[in-house]
Amino acid sequence: MKKPAPRNALYAQSGGVSAVINASACGVIETALRSKHIGKVYAGRHGIIGALTEDLIDVGRESAATIRALKHTPAGAFGSARFKLKSIEQNRAEYERLIEVFRAHDIGYFFYNGGNDSMDTALKVSQIGAALGYPVTCVGVPKTVDNDLPHTDCCPGFGSVAKYVAVSTREAALDVASMARTSTRVFVLEVMGRHAGWIAAAGGLAGKGAAEPPHLILFPEVPFEQQKFLARVQECVEAYGYCVIVVSEGAAYADGKFLADAGTRDAFGHTQLGGVAPLVANMVREAHGYKYHWAVADYLQRAARHIASRVDVDQAYAVGRAAVELAVRGVNAVMPTLVRKSSRPYKWVIGHVPLSEVANKEKKLPPDYIREDGFGITAACRRYLEPLIAGEAYPPYRDGLPDYVHIRGVGVRRKLKAEFKV
Amino acid sequence: MKKPAPRNALYAQSGGVSAVINASACGVIETALRSKHIGKVYAGRHGIIGALTEDLIDVGRESAATIRALKHTPAGAFGSARFKLKSIEQNRAEYERLIEVFRAHDIGYFFYNGGNDSMDTALKVSQIGAALGYPVTCVGVPKTVDNDLPHTDCCPGFGSVAKYVAVSTREAALDVASMARTSTRVFVLEVMGRHAGWIAAAGGLAGKGAAEPPHLILFPEVPFEQQKFLARVQECVEAYGYCVIVVSEGAAYADGKFLADAGTRDAFGHTQLGGVAPLVANMVREAHGYKYHWAVADYLQRAARHIASRVDVDQAYAVGRAAVELAVRGVNAVMPTLVRKSSRPYKWVIGHVPLSEVANKEKKLPPDYIREDGFGITAACRRYLEPLIAGEAYPPYRDGLPDYVHIRGVGVRRKLKAEFKV
Repeated sequence: MKKPAPRNALYAQSGGVSAVINASACGVIETALRSKHIGKVYAGRHGIIGALTEDLIDVGRESAATIRALKHTPAGAFGSARFKLKSIEQNRAEYERLIEVFRAHDIGYFFYNGGNDSMDTALKVSQIGAALGYPVTCVGVPKTVDNDLPHTDCCPGFGSVAKYVAVSTREAALDVASMARTSTRVFVLEVMGRHAGWIAAAGGLAGKGAAEPPHLILFPEVPFEQQKFLARVQECVEAYGYCVIVVSEGAAYADGKFLADAGTRDAFGHTQLGGVAPLVANMVREAHGYKYHWAVADYLQRAARHIASRVDVDQAYAVGRAAVELAVRGVNAVMPTLVRKSSRPYKWVIGHVPLSEVANKEKKLPPDYIREDGFGITAACRRYLEPLIAGEAYPPYRDGLPDYVHIRGVGVRRKLKAEFKV
Repeated sequence: MKKPAPRNALYAQSGGVSAVINASACGVIETALRSKHIGKVYAGRHGIIGALTEDLIDVGRESAATIRALKHTPAGAFGSARFKLKSIEQNRAEYERLIEVFRAHDIGYFFYNGGNDSMDTALKVSQIGAALGYPVTCVGVPKTVDNDLPHTDCCPGFGSVAKYVAVSTREAALDVASMARTSTRVFVLEVMGRHAGWIAAAGGLAGKGAAEPPHLILFPEVPFEQQKFLARVQECVEAYGYCVIVVSEGAAYADGKFLADAGTRDAFGHTQLGGVAPLVANMVREAHGYKYHWAVADYLQRAARHIASRVDVDQAYAVGRAAVELAVRGVNAVMPTLVRKSSRPYKWVIGHVPLSEVANKEKKLPPDYIREDGFGITAACRRYLEPLIAGEAYPPYRDGLPDYVHIRGVGVRRKLKAEFKV
């Protein structure tokens, strides 16, 4: 009796990208291409959008060198999308279309790289497939620079942002210390993390103890008290000659209102969005008159593959590989996790957790990671964070610039007649 | 007859610091400590302020390892100052005080690391010394991230900022390209360079040709025309799906008014300073409604020793060493320069130029380095810039972070009774 041909695999990336999301792609693709249980390997162009519109990339048409180079290339080489599928009740058509595309291309394995929204989507796809008589093994691949996924010790993407923020804070602090005698006394660095202070906390690794910069961290988890903050800035300038502040974009007042939404208006009276750093810096100037500088790292921080954490790159690859290994063993509707065995020395293994436990949940910075005064990190937090930024994983360079790869992106021939509008 | 004891040397840093200003310090100090023509080596704490207030650091009290580590440590380890001496007519007392401090500590060599203001100061110190019967050999050490010193092919500090900006632009552009299908379409990166577009131009190295990001660069040298700019942004988004913009903090309208001074006001109606990136991003949103992100690199760019250019580090060290070699040969009132012998392959040597020719002059981006449409760089500009970002010079790491050095900073015993208020 002839064995049935192995079914194909579809890989898709979702949401904000990171310095190592392609390293996970590399782990998925290299493992899938080697597996005798998997036929063709496809990727959704711009994630789930590509899956819905039947815009698939034939990953087998890329060279092995290109696939390998994904490991050192930041951002999403296959494209990503901010596109959350609605609930099945609200838009069953989307799920049915997905299964239709899967059926047309004999997709038996679906690997979805993303955060908690995406884990929810992957779970639903697996359920709908079963309900429609088209079984598909759906495995999530954890990714979020925000580090807010539950049930995993950390998230690929976070370690590299953490390293970028810690390194940048240390470097900028040396600059301010040099200048403070006659010029800049206050420096404010704005970092990502709309709802959780993990990235801001990483800034705390730049120094040790309250006397070393950053002198203040503003976390989303700690309601902002302006007078307390301003008093502390003054204390720092008087004690150390300068003050370095790391502020999370999610810093908020006790009523939940973001500092960044404080009603700043441009020349035409329109609300000016974003920029909690200039706002905080201005607040300090109004109160104390100190000369200041501020920086907003924005995409630079999450795309900074040039200063990626080696641990993060290794883990990103490992969860990608593990996703495929789980899938071909028939383990469905799970997400590989990172399990910490010890902090010093740092030891980790791969575990996994049902998607249903991850979906749509958020992990905030625990209270015992925040210093009692609310402006710094504790020793426990440092013990948690330090291993995640360990090691460098420099990309190759050409003409002074990182030699990042671009995929060919050859499309898979469409089989469906119906177009799908997203 | 007993030979007179060799006279001492004073090193001081001035103005904004850089990723490699300490590498120049390392070049000066290592060479001076080895020279039989130089006695003690001192450094002004916070530059000229330390010299005026007789607050000198005994560099001989630092270990050789510390001095060596300056080569991989960003910012000004001895401190810097934004303090321009007034003209001799306006404040002769300052110059006389300097000579008095020099006399008290037998300073025969003065090495002043800075930009064109500092070269002017070094020149005047040499003149005043002669006039007061206290000859002192004054040699400048070129430094400015802005790359605006005349008579030198480039300035130490610039190559590393250029590399940081080119790398960051390339990385952020990959991020935007990933997201553009459903989310961010326009990304704006603000870089330094108040009066000259050298740093903004370096962003242009991230891509090749008008189709590769950055799609637009806004230079201080090209008067900003809002309609032309907005039309070009739309063309890029329509042609490439997204648009990456590098904007110089010095971008200005035809009447010389900075874009950043466009009257943005905060919630209290106060003028909000700085931030041309959010302003430009908002302008695009108002006109086209595109979702945007923006970043302001600020101090991160000039302190980013972790991604320094090897050529820049080597040149920074070389001009420091050359300054001492010139001084002990009795060459007075000069500044070592970088002379380009060829671009491909890149070959350079050290020359020198009288301080009088450097002082208070500025070198702008030449017109033939700016693309005809005003929004990009030419092949000539690329040929000039490319060698300056070549090579990596990674610092050592400890616990995931660059292991930057801190000096002991042991003070030299004061000899003067009079205090000097600055």
